[in-house]
Amino acid sequence: MSLVRPLFVVAGIGNGTGTGAATARLFAKSGYRVALISRGPEYLDKLAAEINQAGGEAAAFPLQNYTTASIKSAFASLKSRWPSSPLRVAVFNAGYGVWKPFLDITEDEVRESIDTNILAAFAFAREALLEFTKLELETANEGGVAGNARKRGTLIFTGATASIRGNVLTSAFSASKFGIRALSQSLAKEFAKKNIHVAHSIIDGTIITERTKSQRNNPSWEADQDVRLDPDSIAKSYLHLVEQDSSAWTWEIDLRPAHEKW
Amino acid sequence: MSLVRPLFVVAGIGNGTGTGAATARLFAKSGYRVALISRGPEYLDKLAAEINQAGGEAAAFPLQNYTTASIKSAFASLKSRWPSSPLRVAVFNAGYGVWKPFLDITEDEVRESIDTNILAAFAFAREALLEFTKLELETANEGGVAGNARKRGTLIFTGATASIRGNVLTSAFSASKFGIRALSQSLAKEFAKKNIHVAHSIIDGTIITERTKSQRNNPSWEADQDVRLDPDSIAKSYLHLVEQDSSAWTWEIDLRPAHEKW
Amino acid sequence: MSLVRPLFVVAGIGNGTGTGAATARLFAKSGYRVALISRGPEYLDKLAAEINQAGGEAAAFPLQNYTTASIKSAFASLKSRWPSSPLRVAVFNAGYGVWKPFLDITEDEVRESIDTNILAAFAFAREALLEFTKLELETANEGGVAGNARKRGTLIFTGATASIRGNVLTSAFSASKFGIRALSQSLAKEFAKKNIHVAHSIIDGTIITERTKSQRNNPSWEADQDVRLDPDSIAKSYLHLVEQDSSAWTWEIDLRPAHEKW
Amino acid sequence: MSLVRPLFVVAGIGNGTGTGAATARLFAKSGYRVALISRGPEYLDKLAAEINQAGGEAAAFPLQNYTTASIKSAFASLKSRWPSSPLRVAVFNAGYGVWKPFLDITEDEVRESIDTNILAAFAFAREALLEFTKLELETANEGGVAGNARKRGTLIFTGATASIRGNVLTSAFSASKFGIRALSQSLAKEFAKKNIHVAHSIIDGTIITERTKSQRNNPSWEADQDVRLDPDSIAKSYLHLVEQDSSAWTWEIDLRPAHEKW
Repeated sequence: MSLVRPLFVVAGIGNGTGTGAATARLFAKSGYRVALISRGPEYLDKLAAEINQAGGEAAAFPLQNYTTASIKSAFASLKSRWPSSPLRVAVFNAGYGVWKPFLDITEDEVRESIDTNILAAFAFAREALLEFTKLELETANEGGVAGNARKRGTLIFTGATASIRGNVLTSAFSASKFGIRALSQSLAKEFAKKNIHVAHSIIDGTIITERTKSQRNNPSWEADQDVRLDPDSIAKSYLHLVEQDSSAWTWEIDLRPAHEKW
Repeated sequence: MSLVRPLFVVAGIGNGTGTGAATARLFAKSGYRVALISRGPEYLDKLAAEINQAGGEAAAFPLQNYTTASIKSAFASLKSRWPSSPLRVAVFNAGYGVWKPFLDITEDEVRESIDTNILAAFAFAREALLEFTKLELETANEGGVAGNARKRGTLIFTGATASIRGNVLTSAFSASKFGIRALSQSLAKEFAKKNIHVAHSIIDGTIITERTKSQRNNPSWEADQDVRLDPDSIAKSYLHLVEQDSSAWTWEIDLRPAHEKW
Repeated sequence: MSLVRPLFVVAGIGNGTGTGAATARLFAKSGYRVALISRGPEYLDKLAAEINQAGGEAAAFPLQNYTTASIKSAFASLKSRWPSSPLRVAVFNAGYGVWKPFLDITEDEVRESIDTNILAAFAFAREALLEFTKLELETANEGGVAGNARKRGTLIFTGATASIRGNVLTSAFSASKFGIRALSQSLAKEFAKKNIHVAHSIIDGTIITERTKSQRNNPSWEADQDVRLDPDSIAKSYLHLVEQDSSAWTWEIDLRPAHEKW
Repeated sequence: MSLVRPLFVVAGIGNGTGTGAATARLFAKSGYRVALISRGPEYLDKLAAEINQAGGEAAAFPLQNYTTASIKSAFASLKSRWPSSPLRVAVFNAGYGVWKPFLDITEDEVRESIDTNILAAFAFAREALLEFTKLELETANEGGVAGNARKRGTLIFTGATASIRGNVLTSAFSASKFGIRALSQSLAKEFAKKNIHVAHSIIDGTIITERTKSQRNNPSWEADQDVRLDPDSIAKSYLHLVEQDSSAWTWEIDLRPAHEKW
């Protein structure tokens, strides 16, 4: 049994108050080394420091942008930082959204949406899967981490309502999110045979973050957990996916607040 | 905070080796009183005895068949058995499947499929929801049970591949399973406002039970957890659904073995 | 080449101003003998008379209710009425809808919804498919009717928004409509090999009929074809489905007014 | 009533034997001027000549590649070729497919798939919609063309099985096709209010073309219309979509050979 702590990597941290950050905190607490890939080095460093001070082990791998080369380089860095840690969990949480009437969306905005979402997801998936396929199956309790026996690794993509429904104003965003969903389903089928678990979440509602709090400026919305998604609650479902054994894997899970209209 | 243990009810136990029974065992271990509703009194009694001997608390409520009257009567019995226990979790796992070329299916078989699946699901849902709507919201750690704050209750329906895909030989079965899925989605939307969580699983593969073991008679299939669903693993995902707080509820989760082709 | 006119049968005529009636009129004009199966003998007779006066050929086969026995008996009557006419098109357009909060729906209402929708669809499909499977493939221009070469027959089910989405108030209705959709998909797959084409429509919006006109009492709604479905337009799409040759069949088609929000 | 013939434009002609070409031929026969946009100038010129010789009116607008600039330039050319013809129908049929194990797909292949499919679809849609939004509603029998009253125009995207299902080997292709489907649904919702009809087809099977004939080299497959899609039959369903009046529009239609397994 390996005594080395396994590695968790997440791409897309935003300002450190959303799904990516919550997931990083929870997996750190659960015994994983945590690699943070994102734009915004100040938020990355702050989150890494917070996790380290709380007794976890995290490092920041800042990107200028989500190009394939940058993502590849970030993975090279994290592997050289922790050469003996097996990568076991990868979460793709990056994203770029533009909500505009179709004829107002510029070619550059379409391209940025496609690139930051789909191409980045392909690049991130490639790096994660290259690592997973090199590894042996996890054993129970590997490196002190519970419950993920008979996997080589788990790759989770964060989706949205726009992953399953195109709508007015979402042409570019939903084209990107549909694309990632297709990728996740293709990979789930292709890599399951290698005991690599690929999953996709549909976050159907507004997540409470520093950004959405300041946008809404509505204390009663903030206080009412029935109306907005808590990033920590999303993270718990991600941990559940990671802990599913190979007899019962989930590809897709939807998550929404109790009072969300859908 | 209530000190009374909350109640879990499941309909559909089969011969005590599948999803219904595994769910009953896991929720008993997690602190719930367990009410078992099913045909086949010998299996019911055996499972109740097993749970009680293991330190849990279970009782059997046998049915002749899944009529509305029988289901109503079973709920009346379980409420009189444990009058002060709040019902918090209900799992509808009953089912009847007929796989035949369409023109070979008799009218009686269609009716039995519709009745045992859809009508029984309506009746079971009604009894569970009548109980849930009477209750106050759960508090954290109610009766010693973890993690389901701000819910009145959770109602889970067990679905199958046939819940989302009609196929050759499955006209009657998939009509029934599609129907239950529609019911679950309607209820999820209607009762979410009352903080009642309704979920639906899609079991996409063969579950290992005494019945499927004897049908297949294939020790290597039994031994390989990557190719068949373990009922205990399904139960863990059901417990996760129950433990989701009201900021991030799942309506639908698919579960399949790693090596399932889909 | 057969000189006998082929037969078209539709179940569900309502008051003679909706989809069933429009379809009957269009197929009569296109050269089919038309058999009308429905409750409400006065509307049936009126519609049959109207079609006959317009130069078509129609007969009414009234039902007391949509039991399997009644449907079987109606088919026996129409076959004895036109023994040499090959049945080529069957449209199941019957339906019963109840929109109520779940806990207000009675057991009888659930049963009537299930029976009038799902069981009746099974019975209707069975009778139609028994006829189709007895026939030779259609030849081009059979009995003066255009365009359906290399089919034994076409069976179309009329669906609704509730066929693909459960919602508040629609538990019983959507359970029934999901069930019919599953049936249609199963049959499409099973009978395609016999060159029998099974299709399903999703009518996503309000159809303009005498009933919806009197319910709304809104002349501007009536006048604006962009906001409500015209039964004659639905019928044209059904005719298109029937005319598709065996190289390119549609299982499912959605139909909604231009200005419908979805 | 306009006496000017309306304009039909299609992108993606391949070698002139598939869906794009069949659609062009059928719309030319139905009274439309036909603008052909594609790579492969030799096939384009050949098809335009064929249509012109058959009494239609077609012109070729060759592209080097499906960049936004090239597509914009092709539309500028066709508008200057036929300045008074209202554009009424646009079909996006271009596509690039790569079927490979995920780890064998290069970054360039992913980018080409995304660009040739999604970005090109955005650019094509933009040019078509800019034209449509400038026009008045069609009148009945505009320019001698039947049946599309109360539309400004129809935009159809050709999809595939991969538009709704990711699979082993299709990560890049299905990501692209899912993306186009999302675009089509967003546009259908946004532009319906302007009486612009946007539709999406799911071609679920192999189309018989010169290319697939030579790949398969199987005369019995070629001869059996039940097992492969005929481009002319697909074109007929596209014409039906165009002819749907605004009371009953279809967003999505699936098309498959009778004997296709699905």
